[in-house]
Amino acid sequence: MRFFSDNAASVHPAVLEALAAANRVDTAYDGDALSRSLDARFSDLFGRECRVLWVATGTAANALALAALVPPYAGTVCHRDAHIQNDECGAPEFFTHGAKLHLGDGDGAKLTPAGVSRVLDAIANDVHRVQPRALSITNATEYGRVYTPDEVAALGALARERGLGFHMDGARFANAVAHLGCSPAAISCDGGVDVLSFGFVKNGGLSAEALVFFRPELVAGVPERRKRAGHLLSKGRFMAAQIIAMLAEDRWLDAARAANGAARRIADAAPARLIHAVEANELFLRMTPAEAETLRAQGFDFYDWAEGEVRFVTSWDQPDAEVAALAGALARL
Amino acid sequence: MRFFSDNAASVHPAVLEALAAANRVDTAYDGDALSRSLDARFSDLFGRECRVLWVATGTAANALALAALVPPYAGTVCHRDAHIQNDECGAPEFFTHGAKLHLGDGDGAKLTPAGVSRVLDAIANDVHRVQPRALSITNATEYGRVYTPDEVAALGALARERGLGFHMDGARFANAVAHLGCSPAAISCDGGVDVLSFGFVKNGGLSAEALVFFRPELVAGVPERRKRAGHLLSKGRFMAAQIIAMLAEDRWLDAARAANGAARRIADAAPARLIHAVEANELFLRMTPAEAETLRAQGFDFYDWAEGEVRFVTSWDQPDAEVAALAGALARL
Amino acid sequence: MRFFSDNAASVHPAVLEALAAANRVDTAYDGDALSRSLDARFSDLFGRECRVLWVATGTAANALALAALVPPYAGTVCHRDAHIQNDECGAPEFFTHGAKLHLGDGDGAKLTPAGVSRVLDAIANDVHRVQPRALSITNATEYGRVYTPDEVAALGALARERGLGFHMDGARFANAVAHLGCSPAAISCDGGVDVLSFGFVKNGGLSAEALVFFRPELVAGVPERRKRAGHLLSKGRFMAAQIIAMLAEDRWLDAARAANGAARRIADAAPARLIHAVEANELFLRMTPAEAETLRAQGFDFYDWAEGEVRFVTSWDQPDAEVAALAGALARL
Amino acid sequence: MRFFSDNAASVHPAVLEALAAANRVDTAYDGDALSRSLDARFSDLFGRECRVLWVATGTAANALALAALVPPYAGTVCHRDAHIQNDECGAPEFFTHGAKLHLGDGDGAKLTPAGVSRVLDAIANDVHRVQPRALSITNATEYGRVYTPDEVAALGALARERGLGFHMDGARFANAVAHLGCSPAAISCDGGVDVLSFGFVKNGGLSAEALVFFRPELVAGVPERRKRAGHLLSKGRFMAAQIIAMLAEDRWLDAARAANGAARRIADAAPARLIHAVEANELFLRMTPAEAETLRAQGFDFYDWAEGEVRFVTSWDQPDAEVAALAGALARL
Repeated sequence: MRFFSDNAASVHPAVLEALAAANRVDTAYDGDALSRSLDARFSDLFGRECRVLWVATGTAANALALAALVPPYAGTVCHRDAHIQNDECGAPEFFTHGAKLHLGDGDGAKLTPAGVSRVLDAIANDVHRVQPRALSITNATEYGRVYTPDEVAALGALARERGLGFHMDGARFANAVAHLGCSPAAISCDGGVDVLSFGFVKNGGLSAEALVFFRPELVAGVPERRKRAGHLLSKGRFMAAQIIAMLAEDRWLDAARAANGAARRIADAAPARLIHAVEANELFLRMTPAEAETLRAQGFDFYDWAEGEVRFVTSWDQPDAEVAALAGALARL
Repeated sequence: MRFFSDNAASVHPAVLEALAAANRVDTAYDGDALSRSLDARFSDLFGRECRVLWVATGTAANALALAALVPPYAGTVCHRDAHIQNDECGAPEFFTHGAKLHLGDGDGAKLTPAGVSRVLDAIANDVHRVQPRALSITNATEYGRVYTPDEVAALGALARERGLGFHMDGARFANAVAHLGCSPAAISCDGGVDVLSFGFVKNGGLSAEALVFFRPELVAGVPERRKRAGHLLSKGRFMAAQIIAMLAEDRWLDAARAANGAARRIADAAPARLIHAVEANELFLRMTPAEAETLRAQGFDFYDWAEGEVRFVTSWDQPDAEVAALAGALARL
Repeated sequence: MRFFSDNAASVHPAVLEALAAANRVDTAYDGDALSRSLDARFSDLFGRECRVLWVATGTAANALALAALVPPYAGTVCHRDAHIQNDECGAPEFFTHGAKLHLGDGDGAKLTPAGVSRVLDAIANDVHRVQPRALSITNATEYGRVYTPDEVAALGALARERGLGFHMDGARFANAVAHLGCSPAAISCDGGVDVLSFGFVKNGGLSAEALVFFRPELVAGVPERRKRAGHLLSKGRFMAAQIIAMLAEDRWLDAARAANGAARRIADAAPARLIHAVEANELFLRMTPAEAETLRAQGFDFYDWAEGEVRFVTSWDQPDAEVAALAGALARL
Repeated sequence: MRFFSDNAASVHPAVLEALAAANRVDTAYDGDALSRSLDARFSDLFGRECRVLWVATGTAANALALAALVPPYAGTVCHRDAHIQNDECGAPEFFTHGAKLHLGDGDGAKLTPAGVSRVLDAIANDVHRVQPRALSITNATEYGRVYTPDEVAALGALARERGLGFHMDGARFANAVAHLGCSPAAISCDGGVDVLSFGFVKNGGLSAEALVFFRPELVAGVPERRKRAGHLLSKGRFMAAQIIAMLAEDRWLDAARAANGAARRIADAAPARLIHAVEANELFLRMTPAEAETLRAQGFDFYDWAEGEVRFVTSWDQPDAEVAALAGALARL
């Protein structure tokens, strides 16, 4: 019973069907009808003009977004525990040609305006210091916490005031929207987000994420950067098809609701162990090594996060029986 | 009737079946059993120890290969018409951090030892010039020509003598092997090739190429470079599955033979028009704009290559009827 | 008797005096009064608003200029024999983060509008090709030829029409101005040049070149790029002092006239040997190895350029006796 | 009376004399006799084989050193307050092509083995995290503290054990040696330092620092990186001459002793205000804005470091009268 990572989950059947349906001769790269329809589909979803490129990974989406916002000699403010800082082997530095990440703090990997201001105010405005040009947050965060519309808007206002582009790593954007029950715009463009890495792979997709630009002018140069990063797949219709399949019939939301719900049920079984509030599909629990061993002996697979801490991640396709089993096992610990 | 690009072809049914078969929960990234089996499969195929990484595009494969061979301050000798020079929007420069391409000449986009030596000899050995560290050839070439085992070996000997790593862009490696009827090793590792971009996407694959290292020590740092380029897909089992499906039952060879055969039949219908010998699945023909117009009016889609020149590319799935129709139309021109 | 390179020449006494005069406590980096005066001095010299940064080498000046004009995924058109292509160990690629050099042809390392257009027209306007964004010429060229005001203006018009920034490598800008007897503006900003690497080191300076921006908005980001390239010297007043000393009393022009005149006298002694017209301070002569040996036996030091070709470079401080000796020796050959 | 920065100090007369003495025609770049003598001079000084390159700034020296030790996908452990992190506008990221700085803590900007281990142990050894490959310390530190031979050796042992290259930023190396009264080797190569940025500019030089490699094999590629960073000055003899002049007659040590002594006298006048022990030529003092204003009104120039903190830096050429005046003024505050 795998609670190790939503990256390990299966692909949504609708995605595989969409791949099969796309399997005809068509224009190469992103000249096909499916790829060309993405701008319109996302513009509809967000209620404003979007420019959208598919890419194969969240890492590529994030790094391309930062490269669009930050010149090589500048920097991005992000949380100390952000995926772009810790889990991408320096992809932001690679795509931006060496721009720096300025690290801030905040509970649950959430940045606050005060926390961001502390980072900004410590950077003297001279040619010797790397000047910040962007703010990047993750929603839901690396600890499964969710920024509300108001929280996003407050950070967006700060970014605008301080001349920073605003990027959201939405590897689990669907989980955040599902948790809040708001519109996708409410925690992105309405709050001042300029570029969103809209994740699908952790939520039923196979290999496609959407890089969404809410300010069309920012997309200048991004197709070239995508190409030269080797991310312009020649059979792009199979990328667009995945995304379209997940957007159809709100599958992306249903999938996220399923994952969130599973996490909720597990959390309710062990409320005293929770290190962070469970708002999306990740659970961080206090647990002794002996307890972890007990669970593993029962067939549960999960991640040792830190000393005395473990991480469980639920997936869109997590069987109810596994969820019930884990909840029961935790209650019994 | 599409003869525009093999990138536009359909995906082999066995590949889609393999994706469906791989659709279960598994380890993320490249820790799954399929991905871990690639070294052994390619080692079997080439008869020597290989280290293999999947990537989503030939551009990524080529650029990672060059980054493994060439430091940022050095260069790669390639043909003036090479894909890495003209069709990757600077991916080699991006992945190598600015290494230069030293351009050579040769008929049909084929380099010869004499041609490579001319390039090398013109580069003074001092700190002001960018020193060559690698040789890269494409087999089959951008003009559909094929390097024989002897030709590869002669270039391999030169590379070794001059201290150059040897890379082969094998976006159409299958077509070259199919044309020659030789072993895959005969035109790669046996001839001194150090790294091969073994293409599948133009030949029935969906989104997976194999980057094959014949000298295991060269792979050091490549997983990190792949990760930070955003090319470590989180559901890597679907990448490996594609490659394994195409290798099984020699599908890769059958697919290439089909494409080559189609090109052969078309070439035989218009021998006087051929600009380059047709050895793989590409045809470059002399053709007036009026003639091209006539063909397009009959429903044939193809590429205007240069003034008075057109390019046709056949695919592994090209219907016989289309091939016959084009052959007939050319004969009637 | 050294005719090997003007890089080997001595430093103008006025420069050393200026260093001594600047040797007092002052503000660090480029905050000193001398550095801050450069904008005004060059604005006077060129008759339009300039923004000027000192750097230690022509290579740094050229590479910073290109980085200001060209994004990493784009390219610069230059001559196949340009210094930026052949003699800077990839500095343009380093500073631009991998932008490509598109190589053109022309006699005497001079580009023409037709030659540049040929390069541009061969680059399909799609995301796969590296798109040109700048034109760079060298005046005087690497073969000692000089672009006239009309020639510069014709290239400037083409650059504007095709959306290219226009850079001039003026390592021997003084020699070109001295040859033409025109204003410095006539072959730079008046002809559409956006950025000029104004060389002093080959012409009496010690370690300071001026990077001159004729469009002030282009300087955005350049101070940061200079700093992070390690080129913001902490005692910048000694950089500015050198430049100011050479500009004073038209020393830069006198020095260039002296070097040009020396070359002229040597050229007149061997007109039949000249491979390129002698317009600045470089001479390229046809010469057999035996003849070269004869000259070397008489104490002349020079560069073997290619088979049957040698290069002599005269300096601002070349003794008349050496010039007369070489002229005589050549005449006797 | 300037206590703002040792960068603003004057150049040692012996350096200017050396420049004048070097002002003859000679081989360009670093082929001159002075440049070629540096390896031997530093090998003598350190008692082991050294390879030495001059560069114009400490930033260039540091960044080249890191590029020699760390591939683009790896990282360097340094102190949170290190110059390479805060004061070089991202030069390390530029020269290394995006390698990350992993930040550690420690009093007075000094790292300890325990502090470094904490940083290292927090980095999981997988492809997603940027793996550390080097350790960089500054001696004397950014707060004027000095690592002793034992402290350097302990860090060197840790670096060796953990597979890290070891770099020392020695912008104020002379001040550290002068403070300790030890041999230069004792706090560098004897303690396991692989590469040293040996500073001269803050200590009487004009524009030359020495990049010293204690492991000759590490210098591979560094001349090329220096060239393509625009740091191979064409009149290199004037760079080597500065360094040689400062090494002669132990001028570098005398200069550092003078600066340290001045700092000592000032420190003794205000011991209660010291934030860090004064071991080199920097003083960090607690001071109210009103007190700072009082000092400035008396003609003292210095840096507002942080709220309630100011920084004074003494120079090799600081007049005794200024030192006495400042000491008196502080005592009277």
